[in-house]
Amino acid sequence: MIKQWDTVAVVGVGLIGGSVGLALRERGLAEHVVGIGRRAASLRKARQCGAVTRTTTSLARGVADADLVVVCTPVGNIVSQVLEVAEACPPSALITDVGSTKQHIVEALDRALNRPDPRVRQEVGRATFVGSHPLAGSEKTGPAFARADLFVDRAVVVTPTRRSPPAAVRRTIGLWKSLGANVVEKSPQAHDQLVAAISHLPHLVASALATATPPRDICLAAGGWRDTTRVAAADAELWKQILSDNRGHVLKSLDSFETVLATFREALESDDQDRLLLLLEAGKQHRESLGN
Amino acid sequence: MIKQWDTVAVVGVGLIGGSVGLALRERGLAEHVVGIGRRAASLRKARQCGAVTRTTTSLARGVADADLVVVCTPVGNIVSQVLEVAEACPPSALITDVGSTKQHIVEALDRALNRPDPRVRQEVGRATFVGSHPLAGSEKTGPAFARADLFVDRAVVVTPTRRSPPAAVRRTIGLWKSLGANVVEKSPQAHDQLVAAISHLPHLVASALATATPPRDICLAAGGWRDTTRVAAADAELWKQILSDNRGHVLKSLDSFETVLATFREALESDDQDRLLLLLEAGKQHRESLGN
Repeated sequence: MIKQWDTVAVVGVGLIGGSVGLALRERGLAEHVVGIGRRAASLRKARQCGAVTRTTTSLARGVADADLVVVCTPVGNIVSQVLEVAEACPPSALITDVGSTKQHIVEALDRALNRPDPRVRQEVGRATFVGSHPLAGSEKTGPAFARADLFVDRAVVVTPTRRSPPAAVRRTIGLWKSLGANVVEKSPQAHDQLVAAISHLPHLVASALATATPPRDICLAAGGWRDTTRVAAADAELWKQILSDNRGHVLKSLDSFETVLATFREALESDDQDRLLLLLEAGKQHRESLGN
Repeated sequence: MIKQWDTVAVVGVGLIGGSVGLALRERGLAEHVVGIGRRAASLRKARQCGAVTRTTTSLARGVADADLVVVCTPVGNIVSQVLEVAEACPPSALITDVGSTKQHIVEALDRALNRPDPRVRQEVGRATFVGSHPLAGSEKTGPAFARADLFVDRAVVVTPTRRSPPAAVRRTIGLWKSLGANVVEKSPQAHDQLVAAISHLPHLVASALATATPPRDICLAAGGWRDTTRVAAADAELWKQILSDNRGHVLKSLDSFETVLATFREALESDDQDRLLLLLEAGKQHRESLGN
């Protein structure tokens, strides 16, 4: 079997980065996977679980031979780290990221790395960047939770722009397909609007619900509270960056949510049971369109 | 082994009623379990899975020999059905229910069945009622999902009042303990306040969140949306009755939730990242006090 990549560098070996490494290794798609991180313990863990073949704390050294670099660091660090990667990696390399927001990241990197018209791109230049976001993950963090099948049958959004070189877009899509994912192409803006609705607002709501529950009552909470608030246990710093970065779209999703919430309030205040039933049936119908 | 009960009648053989029957049978606690329901298909299913030893569609015939009657019907039917049970069952019988709200149900049934001072209760009288609510269950309904261990290590709230005969309260607590549950005693009002916070508000929020999500985006929803909206798939008619019956407490819980939501909105609108982080950390801390 011909390896798809010779050397892949993964910047940030947490749940997603570790799973990218594991999946590439288990599927025989990469000869070398270099894990780049700041904490020796995480790097050791990533080596132990087979997610990477070698590790380094030096970004420049880690990406020096890479033909693919996947940046898996928190949203707030991605732009600066991709720029640093682009300085140090071979000019033929493809750089992608897995950030949960795309608009600001892709705009900044397009401006810095991709030419206005990708058709006149010169052969000798700098590495190219295409944004990605796997809609997989959990409230768990760290390489200990990495799984080779994390992306199988899960959606990965790839966010090309007019500045993205078509070959780089094809390679990015090919990467995620080779890990088993269903790839969806969206503009960075359409992506951010989507994830505001299906991920960022649910996170905010789960967190607000957990906070609003009197601590003395939580020990008696059953399955409903448990499920509804689960994601609130995720890393607060990571989610601060995500919500802040995407706050325009999140606020619009919050508007929609508060409108529905206000109709629930009205139905309860007036004890309008017919309306309450219609509201609950709408929620049930939306929920059931997804399955368990 | 001495059976704890000779004949137990279960009114409504859905998830909870079926699980009560299964648990009593598997633990050898009841000689006979009579399943009472309106739909032949559910009654047949309950017989097939071993939750009941016989079934009937006649409430009066079903409870005629019962020393314990557990009413597992939707909240809106409980008062009238318990009154009907009390007319037809032996005067020594204990009646309890599993309704998700307690204040209105217990008030009405106390007035009708229990004497103002239970110490002067005459030997020959009517059956007594004590309210219960197992904090177990799921968005699934029907006897097919019944499990003998549904109550093991789960909380069951028993809601005695000043009118509840102490012996009946002891028997009710003993019932749930014998099925493996952790019994918590609360006043009906304290119960309703509790479940508004840990169950009814989360349900309303999950439903509103599902409805607020654009249908075209739902197919891409990942774990966060999936968990946060799961309970919205539950039976809308049942939940209409619950939310309507407990709307006073649910509206107060909604106030608390909206207050937290408003602070999230302010933090996003002003991009106050320090405040956003504090809010997310509070949600994480509340959520982690429960565990997975």
